[in-house]
Amino acid sequence: MPDLDPEEFRRLGHRYIDWVADHRAGLESRPVRDDVEPGSVRRRFPTEAAEEPQGLDALLERVDEVVVPADTRWQHPGFHAFFPANASLTSLLGEIVAGGLGPQGMLWSTSPACTEVEQALTDQLARALGLGEAFTHPGGGGGSIQDSASSAALVALLAALHRTSGGRWRETGVTGDERVYVTAETHSSLAKAVRVAGLGERGLRVVGFAPGTRTMDPHALAAMLEADASQGLVPAMVCATVGTTGTGAVDPVREIATTAAPYGAWVHVDAAWAGVAALCPEFRYLVDGVELVDSFCTDAHKWLLTAFDASLLWVRDAAALPSALSLTPAYLRDSASDSGAVVDYRDWQVPLGRRFRAMKIWAVLHGQGLQGLRAHLRGHVALADELARRIRAHPMLQLAAEPSLSLLCLRVRTGGAQLEDQAADEAADDRATRSLLAEVNASGRVFLSHTQIDGRFVIRVAFGATTTTRRHLDELWTIITDPVPPTTLR
Amino acid sequence: MPDLDPEEFRRLGHRYIDWVADHRAGLESRPVRDDVEPGSVRRRFPTEAAEEPQGLDALLERVDEVVVPADTRWQHPGFHAFFPANASLTSLLGEIVAGGLGPQGMLWSTSPACTEVEQALTDQLARALGLGEAFTHPGGGGGSIQDSASSAALVALLAALHRTSGGRWRETGVTGDERVYVTAETHSSLAKAVRVAGLGERGLRVVGFAPGTRTMDPHALAAMLEADASQGLVPAMVCATVGTTGTGAVDPVREIATTAAPYGAWVHVDAAWAGVAALCPEFRYLVDGVELVDSFCTDAHKWLLTAFDASLLWVRDAAALPSALSLTPAYLRDSASDSGAVVDYRDWQVPLGRRFRAMKIWAVLHGQGLQGLRAHLRGHVALADELARRIRAHPMLQLAAEPSLSLLCLRVRTGGAQLEDQAADEAADDRATRSLLAEVNASGRVFLSHTQIDGRFVIRVAFGATTTTRRHLDELWTIITDPVPPTTLR
Repeated sequence: MPDLDPEEFRRLGHRYIDWVADHRAGLESRPVRDDVEPGSVRRRFPTEAAEEPQGLDALLERVDEVVVPADTRWQHPGFHAFFPANASLTSLLGEIVAGGLGPQGMLWSTSPACTEVEQALTDQLARALGLGEAFTHPGGGGGSIQDSASSAALVALLAALHRTSGGRWRETGVTGDERVYVTAETHSSLAKAVRVAGLGERGLRVVGFAPGTRTMDPHALAAMLEADASQGLVPAMVCATVGTTGTGAVDPVREIATTAAPYGAWVHVDAAWAGVAALCPEFRYLVDGVELVDSFCTDAHKWLLTAFDASLLWVRDAAALPSALSLTPAYLRDSASDSGAVVDYRDWQVPLGRRFRAMKIWAVLHGQGLQGLRAHLRGHVALADELARRIRAHPMLQLAAEPSLSLLCLRVRTGGAQLEDQAADEAADDRATRSLLAEVNASGRVFLSHTQIDGRFVIRVAFGATTTTRRHLDELWTIITDPVPPTTLR
Repeated sequence: MPDLDPEEFRRLGHRYIDWVADHRAGLESRPVRDDVEPGSVRRRFPTEAAEEPQGLDALLERVDEVVVPADTRWQHPGFHAFFPANASLTSLLGEIVAGGLGPQGMLWSTSPACTEVEQALTDQLARALGLGEAFTHPGGGGGSIQDSASSAALVALLAALHRTSGGRWRETGVTGDERVYVTAETHSSLAKAVRVAGLGERGLRVVGFAPGTRTMDPHALAAMLEADASQGLVPAMVCATVGTTGTGAVDPVREIATTAAPYGAWVHVDAAWAGVAALCPEFRYLVDGVELVDSFCTDAHKWLLTAFDASLLWVRDAAALPSALSLTPAYLRDSASDSGAVVDYRDWQVPLGRRFRAMKIWAVLHGQGLQGLRAHLRGHVALADELARRIRAHPMLQLAAEPSLSLLCLRVRTGGAQLEDQAADEAADDRATRSLLAEVNASGRVFLSHTQIDGRFVIRVAFGATTTTRRHLDELWTIITDPVPPTTLR
């Protein structure tokens, strides 16, 4: 038998676990990002795959040689870029069990455990987040685990297209009249979903911000919906974002849902990063109005201690996704599915196959409890609050956006005595901000990313790596306020 | 810090590895499928998630109680249903390293190692499968790892729609005139991709079989393409299947590609299950004509010893997928991407985020070598050949489809003395075949699935589980030819 026998796997598995433990324990002795020349990793591989087995002990040496020095370390406590990707050690234990079981949960019958653990845990999480019983499976809705919020947005859109077509979409496709409403802060995955679904860029309508905010203006939405509907266009979906990628802005879900309702548009909430924070009562405002929407998505794999990929998508109507997506060829028909007593999750997603992703979420819930998860979330929010406090008090720095949970944006304030020339001042500030970001990242001790606000360059700080603590905030502050040249780490 | 510290992970990780080793070693003492009542797993979970941590040692006990007795065991050596899902222990080691590193490879810069290992290994595999240099990254094409062949088909279709629209698809979406050509044996994921892309069922054209086969008739394809084109419809994509799900039929790729070429249609090869067998010179016929196609997909996670999900998709034009799918918001712009010297794999797929899936494929290639992989594939093909030999010699059984690699279909032949009433004979045979399948599966020792051929019910046997050997073929034969009542295993 070509695969390892279980005893050899036991020996090697212990070694591999030790490797992971050592790697994680040693993360801080490495830079957050290596300085990698494009092509340098590929060149370490021979053109042809080896004919003979090379041994799995030796693989770890190759990984140490080739991979470890050429990576961006998302699990490093100094990683504050993009959004976090919490590949917690807790969740890795769940992945090990999932891999050991190795089911393929496309149908209930192909792994009842895989399907029902997912149902049970998404029900528990719906309650813990305050989504309400309507989003649970017993309540007539239900949750599922998608690979990413991008895919969640896509399937929500497909359900929306099917519903707003009166059920004709499956047969006749899109008409080109369907419109999807977002803002300039909405994640690019919505534009991608609109494109994938065949609507083209003309299918995307960008609603303006309410004055002085970066959140969707319900009045502007109302006007746009009315104008479109009066021209015979079809408002298919409105996406409200809870915690935008750029600045963490929170769209007014309740007002958006109320505004969209008369037009029959599907309302999807993309709370990919921020939604999990609703586990804490003080952040429950994040799900205000959710009882009025059709679908709600938040990622366990960003900030809920769960290794990518595990995006949670709830719908209020359990039939919505299967109505749009089901197909049953002969080789997939079975009596359990025909009975209607079970969920076949392949009908909730684009791929047919599925891993037992619920196992890693179970490990997280079991290993941390809701208390542990709340402590994790609150810890990072406190870091952002503290950093904001320091920025406000600093003469050369400025908050470009107030903190939203554990995210904030800052810029350099060069002094700007030239009040007569605001554009020149802003350009100087932007140059200084770019320069600061480059210097800070060159330290190797932290990694920050950037975005634009009103056309201006700003530095984004998103706390959330599993091991980031107050000490790392202090280190970040030191580096920001006194940038150091690239260290000997490199 | 709420997550495990590395030392606690080390201790628990060893325990979890031991659990996996014990579970795999004990698989044969359990039935392939448990008899599960719908809802019985969900009911074992409390309504609310626990507030306090419950401990990760205790989780394994819960898994033993709740999950293990309620599963379908895809890794059991008696699992011969659907297609295999090779969650090899070898590949699990790769997943452990990937989880330990925990990168998110959406951009080259967010994990150069994740991106370049994927490039290097898909290049090696393109060569090992005989796809030719055109499908490698240095050759101007390139491979990627998708979650599933369904997603691979979808992105190939999106690239096809973009190309056949002359680049207008991104802006204006589909027109409704696009057509996609398949056969009645094509996997349902193609119909799903057509639906997702907004073409509706009318976008799918089912080409007839060549006489006496279950493979696409190039003459029928030619006629359909010509008729459609002359009506102003747009042949967007033709999907040739190498190893259909039902019977393992192999469409004539070369003739199909030649036929499609004058119409500018994208030619996609779905070789999800069978394609990997082209690693063996004697099965290299599976990729005949591939130099004429635009994309080729085969799953490492079915029959190539790699845990789900890892579907390999190669394209001949590396720009095809990014041209259709790229979107660059401010927060994802970076200098490496802008330089054009690197691949950003987010533009090759629907989701934005991606795991380090190449690590598990590396473990398989490193741990097995091409020799080990060929031995694995050949072993299962030999089992199907031997089973076919026995069926041919058996008075009450009949091959409903000749073996294709490790897959065959069989039916019961009840005797059929009523030559004057063929329909009655066939109905009697079908009833007996259904009854045999039910009895065989009720044994708990093996699990077979079924399909339809020309409207008739047949039993499918797909060898390919990592641990299935000659002994398991003998056991299957005993059960088929002398069905036993449900054993005490249950």
